[in-house]
Amino acid sequence: MLRLCLPLLFVPLLLAQSDDLRALMKQSEDAWNRGDLPAFARFYEDSPETTFIGREVTHGGFQAILERYRKSYPTRERMGTLTFSSIETRALAPGVALLTGEFHLRRTAAGGGDADGHYTLIWRKTAAGWKIIHDHSS
Amino acid sequence: MLRLCLPLLFVPLLLAQSDDLRALMKQSEDAWNRGDLPAFARFYEDSPETTFIGREVTHGGFQAILERYRKSYPTRERMGTLTFSSIETRALAPGVALLTGEFHLRRTAAGGGDADGHYTLIWRKTAAGWKIIHDHSS
Repeated sequence: MLRLCLPLLFVPLLLAQSDDLRALMKQSEDAWNRGDLPAFARFYEDSPETTFIGREVTHGGFQAILERYRKSYPTRERMGTLTFSSIETRALAPGVALLTGEFHLRRTAAGGGDADGHYTLIWRKTAAGWKIIHDHSS
Repeated sequence: MLRLCLPLLFVPLLLAQSDDLRALMKQSEDAWNRGDLPAFARFYEDSPETTFIGREVTHGGFQAILERYRKSYPTRERMGTLTFSSIETRALAPGVALLTGEFHLRRTAAGGGDADGHYTLIWRKTAAGWKIIHDHSS
């Protein structure tokens, strides 16, 4: 009986977690769209263990992630306007979640043109709140 | 004191886990290189929750994953020879691990030519052993 009930007990917790993460994704989208790369990079855990797999692999915390973004998006025009869609979340363990979705970058031709793709984010609840510990974007 | 010791106590467990996962990656490489796609697809959890992000997103267990691979790699020549490198593992929670690395596909021009890329795998220890519950390859 307890075994049957346990998933039901977890549902509100998981829904709350999913809401928290979706709110963070919205905040991160907003940071990008006001051209604030440092705020965008603050969603990543500031740890040497943090990883980002894009065309190349970046290891490292806030500074490494920020530099990666600054290199790829040196101007406001290169950044364009970002939206996230098709967000799905899955609890992997208490305080660890998988979040997947699509990104859409709307840009002028001079800014590099539109770009769309998928991402896999692993979020971990740290003392500083939920942070991305791994990002794979393609 | 306990707090200081705990990470040390976990080290042998984490190393054993990393060894198990590396052994599974080798087995999966071997399955591919003998042209055995069903065996390769068996490393994924047979669950509707399993996800694969490649150029498109696949949701589903063994059959969905197998069909995805059969569509992309319909012949032995298209499959070529697979090697994995730069494997890194990270424990996310007891029985949940993140594994990242590079894939290298050596193929004839008729088979589609060489292909290289990165993957993010989330492995979960199930009743049937460690299984991939999410794959992002690019």
